[in-house]
Amino acid sequence: MRIGVLTGGGDCPGLNAVIRAVVRTANGRYGDAIVGFRDGWRGLLEDRKIHIHNDDRTDRLLTKGGTMLGTARTNPDVLRAGLGRIKQTLDDNGIDALIPIGGEGTLTAGSWLADEGVPVVGVPKTIDNDIDCTDTTFGHDTAVTIATDAIDRLHTTAESHQRVMLVEVMGRHAGWIAMNAGIAAGAHLTLVPEVPFDVDEVCTMIKRRFQRGDSHFICVVAEGAKPAEGSFALRQGGIDEYGHERFTGVAHQLGVEIERRIGKEVRTTVLGHVQRGGTPTAFDRVLATRFGVHATEAVHDGHFGQMVALHGTEIDLVPLSEATKQLKLVPEDRHDEAAAFFG
Amino acid sequence: MRIGVLTGGGDCPGLNAVIRAVVRTANGRYGDAIVGFRDGWRGLLEDRKIHIHNDDRTDRLLTKGGTMLGTARTNPDVLRAGLGRIKQTLDDNGIDALIPIGGEGTLTAGSWLADEGVPVVGVPKTIDNDIDCTDTTFGHDTAVTIATDAIDRLHTTAESHQRVMLVEVMGRHAGWIAMNAGIAAGAHLTLVPEVPFDVDEVCTMIKRRFQRGDSHFICVVAEGAKPAEGSFALRQGGIDEYGHERFTGVAHQLGVEIERRIGKEVRTTVLGHVQRGGTPTAFDRVLATRFGVHATEAVHDGHFGQMVALHGTEIDLVPLSEATKQLKLVPEDRHDEAAAFFG
Amino acid sequence: MRIGVLTGGGDCPGLNAVIRAVVRTANGRYGDAIVGFRDGWRGLLEDRKIHIHNDDRTDRLLTKGGTMLGTARTNPDVLRAGLGRIKQTLDDNGIDALIPIGGEGTLTAGSWLADEGVPVVGVPKTIDNDIDCTDTTFGHDTAVTIATDAIDRLHTTAESHQRVMLVEVMGRHAGWIAMNAGIAAGAHLTLVPEVPFDVDEVCTMIKRRFQRGDSHFICVVAEGAKPAEGSFALRQGGIDEYGHERFTGVAHQLGVEIERRIGKEVRTTVLGHVQRGGTPTAFDRVLATRFGVHATEAVHDGHFGQMVALHGTEIDLVPLSEATKQLKLVPEDRHDEAAAFFG
Amino acid sequence: MRIGVLTGGGDCPGLNAVIRAVVRTANGRYGDAIVGFRDGWRGLLEDRKIHIHNDDRTDRLLTKGGTMLGTARTNPDVLRAGLGRIKQTLDDNGIDALIPIGGEGTLTAGSWLADEGVPVVGVPKTIDNDIDCTDTTFGHDTAVTIATDAIDRLHTTAESHQRVMLVEVMGRHAGWIAMNAGIAAGAHLTLVPEVPFDVDEVCTMIKRRFQRGDSHFICVVAEGAKPAEGSFALRQGGIDEYGHERFTGVAHQLGVEIERRIGKEVRTTVLGHVQRGGTPTAFDRVLATRFGVHATEAVHDGHFGQMVALHGTEIDLVPLSEATKQLKLVPEDRHDEAAAFFG
Repeated sequence: MRIGVLTGGGDCPGLNAVIRAVVRTANGRYGDAIVGFRDGWRGLLEDRKIHIHNDDRTDRLLTKGGTMLGTARTNPDVLRAGLGRIKQTLDDNGIDALIPIGGEGTLTAGSWLADEGVPVVGVPKTIDNDIDCTDTTFGHDTAVTIATDAIDRLHTTAESHQRVMLVEVMGRHAGWIAMNAGIAAGAHLTLVPEVPFDVDEVCTMIKRRFQRGDSHFICVVAEGAKPAEGSFALRQGGIDEYGHERFTGVAHQLGVEIERRIGKEVRTTVLGHVQRGGTPTAFDRVLATRFGVHATEAVHDGHFGQMVALHGTEIDLVPLSEATKQLKLVPEDRHDEAAAFFG
Repeated sequence: MRIGVLTGGGDCPGLNAVIRAVVRTANGRYGDAIVGFRDGWRGLLEDRKIHIHNDDRTDRLLTKGGTMLGTARTNPDVLRAGLGRIKQTLDDNGIDALIPIGGEGTLTAGSWLADEGVPVVGVPKTIDNDIDCTDTTFGHDTAVTIATDAIDRLHTTAESHQRVMLVEVMGRHAGWIAMNAGIAAGAHLTLVPEVPFDVDEVCTMIKRRFQRGDSHFICVVAEGAKPAEGSFALRQGGIDEYGHERFTGVAHQLGVEIERRIGKEVRTTVLGHVQRGGTPTAFDRVLATRFGVHATEAVHDGHFGQMVALHGTEIDLVPLSEATKQLKLVPEDRHDEAAAFFG
Repeated sequence: MRIGVLTGGGDCPGLNAVIRAVVRTANGRYGDAIVGFRDGWRGLLEDRKIHIHNDDRTDRLLTKGGTMLGTARTNPDVLRAGLGRIKQTLDDNGIDALIPIGGEGTLTAGSWLADEGVPVVGVPKTIDNDIDCTDTTFGHDTAVTIATDAIDRLHTTAESHQRVMLVEVMGRHAGWIAMNAGIAAGAHLTLVPEVPFDVDEVCTMIKRRFQRGDSHFICVVAEGAKPAEGSFALRQGGIDEYGHERFTGVAHQLGVEIERRIGKEVRTTVLGHVQRGGTPTAFDRVLATRFGVHATEAVHDGHFGQMVALHGTEIDLVPLSEATKQLKLVPEDRHDEAAAFFG
Repeated sequence: MRIGVLTGGGDCPGLNAVIRAVVRTANGRYGDAIVGFRDGWRGLLEDRKIHIHNDDRTDRLLTKGGTMLGTARTNPDVLRAGLGRIKQTLDDNGIDALIPIGGEGTLTAGSWLADEGVPVVGVPKTIDNDIDCTDTTFGHDTAVTIATDAIDRLHTTAESHQRVMLVEVMGRHAGWIAMNAGIAAGAHLTLVPEVPFDVDEVCTMIKRRFQRGDSHFICVVAEGAKPAEGSFALRQGGIDEYGHERFTGVAHQLGVEIERRIGKEVRTTVLGHVQRGGTPTAFDRVLATRFGVHATEAVHDGHFGQMVALHGTEIDLVPLSEATKQLKLVPEDRHDEAAAFFG
């Protein structure tokens, strides 16, 4: 067979490990040819590709962060309009099956192609853990590990200076990184997009902790956390003199609000891109490898229009159309479980 | 309520995190009194205990390896014979429910007590991942992470010296650490207790790899891996001039056999106790915390004779009697999945 | 003897290790009493203190970041004005010698006290490495290690997305962290306070690298790096709608400038407080321990008005007045050495 | 110019970083041709080599452990006898200068060549830190960091089980790794080759600690540590049924002796090869890079028969003949400094 592979969306630890597993299984075991398209769907729109073989160089991808194929985010409208061109590229290259590795956007486009009869098996990727129909995906554990390590470090500084510290982590729509790193690092409060926060309640919680004699307060803030209505006005873009809205994350603004209201020194750290780079954790390497193997097996079994998924300890297949219907948010009971440790 | 807690069996990263979660939930939320028994079941046999409160000191346990209660392995026969005494201690201390945190041995004793009407909720602990009826337990991810990090390092030395390297990891009965670390670190072969190995086949695989021009060979060996019948005679204790059999692990002997047969330098590393100490990974901290919360909730809901268990993303309860019936070994399909990367 | 100890200035990994070494040597070996003053010089101004003994709890400080004594920055004028009160507190507590552990500000105040006859032995502390008359101090290696680890991770993301990435690290006056982490992580450019940068030259360097076919550009920026005159106007405070200038670091502004000029996606990460927290590296633990031992020995030898210092492999004493005369900046030849790897 | 490079002796983190720095400086800046000889001196004896260019592939060596050139230990007599052949290979390849990177053995051979008029600039490499005339070399900090991390982990297990734990680290002749890791990780005793130990004194120290109520004892043992005369008979090789003496390290034997004498459970861990593999620490990357740059500059300045060396913060040159006269052992005052923390 001739199998196409691409990685789309934001960089994620484990992408290379999936590629390696696909190549070792498909090329190494079955003798398939592997065509890697560059920079996500763009590589298919522009027919830019490389051939990947099961050799020493591929083998070393396991521990390497990022993706050897490059990645890019493509506008969904552009993608929609380009489906014909993508199919043409697949035909021109004689591709028998396509394995897109990516997040919600990438997999949705994969689902569209599947609807048009293209043999697609998707591999879910998201450090945010917000893809539905799978217990988790690779990348998330690495992001949580990096965030936890950072918060572990911030504890000692906060204690020494008796400070309030805010840590902004990734998670635009879903608060999984914030929640898991918050639990893992013993944060005193975690704000997630799923549950709008009230600044006054946050301030009350901080004051109560300090009144009890505790010496510091660590609050993890998902970048997509939102103040409850009437709480405080979150600036959205447009304020920068350069017309630049990138560094107006909620954490910085919340820090200023808290400092203004309780008169205590607040320090804010935005972890940013370090959460998505570098070598994957052992957990993510194993999961990425298993996803790669099972995606290849699904291709050989002719199970198309599916996505590999982790359920318990097993790798299953779920329809791409199901998996891309909605994002997987932190459910209320998980938030309550975590909230028991706040304060 | 008055809740007893103990930690039994080998040390494991996350034990303290469970204790903290029980104390925060039971003492902090419900106002229960927490009595910690020292050094596993011994503490109950000898009525040695401490009272644990939901304070700053307990809070810091989250990131600390080991167990503040101490732990010990107790002979099952001694335990059997001491059940009456254990019940007496529980009565004397007015304990309403007992939460034993431990591996197969500890939970089996918990199951015996439950059979005799003692209100018990168990928490599974094993770096080996061999407790049945739960997807995994805390401690295993940390052990795999440490082993993977070590093997990552051995790769560069093996490459530079063109060597065969054996790495012995924990796993007396089940090969989960070996298998997962082997996948995660890209080992060229992994030997697990579940699948007896043939030394000649191992040598053939090594020779084939070097003949192909590859420059090194990394083999992960579970301490409980066994040669297939007729393969080679594994010495069992008795050889040491001190009558000491502790350092006659299978890896050292296998290394000598391989060196003798293929005439290549072999180096063996036994990771040993570093695999079970130190701060838990973020994954294990989250799981340990959730186990502690749910065990306490089970106590308050009166669900006794049960063990908390991870199924997918949920924490469930399973009967202790079920969970302790047999060890969870690496199933054949998982071994095959991993074996596809050998060579 | 009765020895006072305090930690001043910003939090730094290794402070606790110094305290432990002082306590083990002074209290453990010589039987001295140790009085720890809280929150830097404030503890002396307000006579807030604790007694520290050579026990298990102190012993565990070795690996713990931060400072058990708390720390604070005190305004130099307030300190100047409060010298009398500080001396009074020392007298009231019968302190025979004072060991202030801190950066330039703390040591300068120590020098003032020494001038007035107070028996002082200083211990230099700075993650920035900008204290003069010592090869280095503890804390710096930890900061460089954390920054290097972060930049290692950013490489893979930058490569995968073919991006320019800026990383702002600590260093208001001296570029040591930036320079060392830049070398260690293979940055393509490092901007330090000692050498004003020209934005156009930075852009030219980036363009040249991409033209050569390289796929990413990592630039480390010390927070105190400054544009050369005429290069671009660095906003200084005042722009935030809250009148808050904390998040207007040079890196964010530089990123916007580069993006505007070369039309390429630029991402900026400000590492912030994670650089100064958490457990010290082995190097810093050894150095902090040695400093603590030698400071205590200096007290017992009656060598006052001195600071412990690392010269080669030896711990020496240098006059506090000498060490606090000027900051230790990155000399030109060291910058040139590093600059050979730019581009 | 045409510069030859080789790496000899045991693998060491930072070797690749030196090669990269030499290539970037010599090839990148000066346009020199770089000829890498494979597997230490063997590559020169057998004229096996590769040409290395200042490209992307070389650039990535910075963070990679091991050596791209391969390495080997060569018998000194073979080397002595082969000097003529080595010179012939250098002539045949038109090599203008040779940069051997290695430990005492490699540098001694370099010194012999220099004596015969070959233009040699050596770069010291040793994880053991036993090369004279330089404050330290790259590799040592990484080894100490790995050992410290392992001992940190062993503390919690030892505490939980109230055990004596021995950790064997590298250091056949010099105890630097043991001493530094022992200080950094708060070991209760460190045994180094420089100071023969008495088993009875070790046992007394352990018993005293447990009698004081402390719950564990960690002893770091350099592999070359030796019992004092009359203390106990260290078996040397020959005991293994395979005629194999590799796993008769002093730590295992000492552990058995202690257990026999004090009747307490002792556990022994031999860290082994993990200490010398994997990515170098930031400290070692900076030092290795600086050594590579300065070695190349020395070649261009015609300073031959020298070795680069760290003195304080400067890289100097010292005669190879001086540096290879004797090993740098732990001096008595450093051992005393460390011993103050024993018990």
